[in-house]
Amino acid sequence: MQFRVILRILGILLMLFSLAMLPSMGVSLWYNDGSVFPFGVSFIVIFVVGILVWLPSFGSKQEMRTREGFLVTALFWVVLGTAGSLPLYLAATPNLSFTDAFFESFSGLTTTGATVISGLDDLPKSILFYRQQLQWMGGMGIVVLAVAILPMLGIGGMQLYRAEAPGPVKDNKLTPRIAETAKALWYIYLGFTVVCALAYWAAGMSLFDAIGHSFSTVAIGGFSTKDASIGYFDSPLIESIAIVFMILSAANFSLHFVAFRRKSLRGYFQDPEYQFFLLVIGGLMLLMSLGLWLTSTETGWRALRMGSFEAVSVMTTSGFAASGFSHWPLFLPFLLFLSSFIGGSAASTAGGMKSIRILLLWKQGIREIKRLIHPNGVFPVKVGRKEMPERVLAAVWGFFAVFMFTFTVLLTVLLATGLDFLTAWSVLGSAMNNLGPGLGEASANYANINDPAKWILCFAMLLGRLEIFTLIVIFSPMFWRR
Amino acid sequence: MQFRVILRILGILLMLFSLAMLPSMGVSLWYNDGSVFPFGVSFIVIFVVGILVWLPSFGSKQEMRTREGFLVTALFWVVLGTAGSLPLYLAATPNLSFTDAFFESFSGLTTTGATVISGLDDLPKSILFYRQQLQWMGGMGIVVLAVAILPMLGIGGMQLYRAEAPGPVKDNKLTPRIAETAKALWYIYLGFTVVCALAYWAAGMSLFDAIGHSFSTVAIGGFSTKDASIGYFDSPLIESIAIVFMILSAANFSLHFVAFRRKSLRGYFQDPEYQFFLLVIGGLMLLMSLGLWLTSTETGWRALRMGSFEAVSVMTTSGFAASGFSHWPLFLPFLLFLSSFIGGSAASTAGGMKSIRILLLWKQGIREIKRLIHPNGVFPVKVGRKEMPERVLAAVWGFFAVFMFTFTVLLTVLLATGLDFLTAWSVLGSAMNNLGPGLGEASANYANINDPAKWILCFAMLLGRLEIFTLIVIFSPMFWRR
Ligand SMILES: [K+]
Ligand SMILES: [K+]
Repeated sequence: MQFRVILRILGILLMLFSLAMLPSMGVSLWYNDGSVFPFGVSFIVIFVVGILVWLPSFGSKQEMRTREGFLVTALFWVVLGTAGSLPLYLAATPNLSFTDAFFESFSGLTTTGATVISGLDDLPKSILFYRQQLQWMGGMGIVVLAVAILPMLGIGGMQLYRAEAPGPVKDNKLTPRIAETAKALWYIYLGFTVVCALAYWAAGMSLFDAIGHSFSTVAIGGFSTKDASIGYFDSPLIESIAIVFMILSAANFSLHFVAFRRKSLRGYFQDPEYQFFLLVIGGLMLLMSLGLWLTSTETGWRALRMGSFEAVSVMTTSGFAASGFSHWPLFLPFLLFLSSFIGGSAASTAGGMKSIRILLLWKQGIREIKRLIHPNGVFPVKVGRKEMPERVLAAVWGFFAVFMFTFTVLLTVLLATGLDFLTAWSVLGSAMNNLGPGLGEASANYANINDPAKWILCFAMLLGRLEIFTLIVIFSPMFWRR
Repeated sequence: MQFRVILRILGILLMLFSLAMLPSMGVSLWYNDGSVFPFGVSFIVIFVVGILVWLPSFGSKQEMRTREGFLVTALFWVVLGTAGSLPLYLAATPNLSFTDAFFESFSGLTTTGATVISGLDDLPKSILFYRQQLQWMGGMGIVVLAVAILPMLGIGGMQLYRAEAPGPVKDNKLTPRIAETAKALWYIYLGFTVVCALAYWAAGMSLFDAIGHSFSTVAIGGFSTKDASIGYFDSPLIESIAIVFMILSAANFSLHFVAFRRKSLRGYFQDPEYQFFLLVIGGLMLLMSLGLWLTSTETGWRALRMGSFEAVSVMTTSGFAASGFSHWPLFLPFLLFLSSFIGGSAASTAGGMKSIRILLLWKQGIREIKRLIHPNGVFPVKVGRKEMPERVLAAVWGFFAVFMFTFTVLLTVLLATGLDFLTAWSVLGSAMNNLGPGLGEASANYANINDPAKWILCFAMLLGRLEIFTLIVIFSPMFWRR
């Protein structure tokens, strides 16, 4: 292991990340909300730590290879999550313990959007802005991770778009390709954010709320500046804008890339994963609306409005609330939570297992039934016109089984901390799918969840964001032996 | 589809099944418990219906093929489950609705062992005997099904012992082979039952209880003649006997077959599935005992005694209670329930997904991690010394995914009937794994579960018993098209 190259990268990341304190300082000064101090201190501390971490590798010529890639990818979230918690810990309002500050920061950066804070509406503007911005930066990180980095490690949904067998790419010099791809993605991401913010603003949000919510919408993060989330604005127009941008952000970013290059929307309609995603989300919107209507939970158009919004919000793993769903008959939120296990497209800011994997699992399930009826038949699994290699299919099964296994182990541990079954199941699903909201004791927020459980949930968020295998590989003895 | 052959077989089965009323009539007369009538009427009705079903195919020369095999296998349980509910419905004590009578009969025959009856201790002896006998017959049916029939359909865990690709066997004439195998299995099954009954009797049970409990132990059924189950006897010796016979009954019956033929126990120690099963159950016994001790739920040796018994009882999917576990800290019963998803060996009377499948899933999960670290390595999945064909591995993944998918759909439906999350999850897991006990509202028995939920649970028991695919194949259009 070449630790110097790892330290160099982390040092640079920390120095860059320290700059994230500056906009919040600006907001604090502008609104005179008395929170300049925590951001100022954090800026200096994080920057200095960054230099100290970077210094030993000054002049080193080591290059990052796949092996270091695994570690850097995992450490990226842990290190920035810790750094990001600093101003939240230092701030006088809200008065957070270290656990809570870390949870909030980590939940933000991984775009999970679970919050331990109640009384958002009364927080200093700079803190609110900072939380939204954490999600936005996290979202950007995820796209770069998913499009450029995970495939090089042989992990992640984008893998499934490659015709070859999964596994790390051969090229050992990763840096130039990452930089080039990241730049293009950055422009798309920024473009979406600006348009979304303008739309929210035009629809009646204040400029502050518009920018804040566009950050967390495009990042599929789900943080809000209001306790009541999107429901605060009680506006069908704002909800519609949110729906559009959540569905857009849940698309594979390489589709956006192609669309902007070719000035054509055709790519979206030719992508089997996105088609599948849209089909399921359409069905879920209907099902939810019907469910609300038939159980008389909501009446008339409101059933359609709330059902559709929550369906999109949860299946994309955004986690915004229009009316909330904890008071609905349990099978409806349960169904919603199930959809978050599917999630958006690979290489989007969405969480979950990713639509492409579920599509492949579904097709393979059907194939097994066909094979039972016609044991001598040959049934290739196709996505679009492309036949998927058995090697890739095995990787999808593997992902599913390991996901379920990990989920089950963590659920047992959460129950052992004393959570009840519904709460534990929902917050764990929410964390691993990077969704945000919980049920049971976590219906309103995560303030009542015990501290050990919060740390386990942070770990689950990381697992979800790294599509599990990155972390598992690092924990396997084989990784360190070679 | 050759319906005549199906009717002929079902007719014969019904006529044979009607004979099952006679022992209970004998018990009723012996104890003079006033329940001769329901069994007498049932005997006549079931026998006559059997003749009427059988008659149209008299003289028909049609042979059963794989295709009819699927239907007969599924109908076997449904038809006998219905027939078996008749005396329970007719009996004055307990006074059961049709739903409850069907649930009790179906739960018995599938060796699930979930009961809707409270106050077992005061029931007529004949009814008690009948319930135990239902499980015993069901257990015998399962062994024949798993060893002889499911493999011919290309379904079930035994499949994984074959070196070839899964799929129905070529031979279209199934009957002679089934009969021959069934006879050998019958002797083994009967032998275990007799020895187990004698052991219980010698350990202090009445002869009636000894026979009754040996029926439900060897069948891994879990019905008892007491509300307090095995706990009623409060005897470490009886619990030990139960543990031994549960663990024996959870072994693949072809291992017993080989052991009796060769007069050697070596086969048990050379079977990778049974080794894996024993390893997991050993770990679980330790974990449970430790858990009970550390949480001060039980003290001293009692922690070891109760932890071990419930671990064996639940992982083998027997479902007997020594102390019960609904008052334990939730993570302990949850862990127990998880082990029931593993279950015993293929071709045993145990339920669950079967140890061999979980072993293969585990090995494949490990392989995916190895493949990520060494993308060019070749890592065959071996069981013992035998390399498993990829085709078989795909079938295991498929089973797991379809199991989980079915579980999730049924869980949603159960929640929609109004059950709470813990109750719904536990009773569904209990039904699909043919385990028996539930948590939450079903902690004591299933009397408080609503009727629609009971029917769904019956369906889940059937799914579990038929290792899912038998039913799914029947429901697929392709099956009927060819
Ligand atoms: K989220
Ligand atoms: K059972």
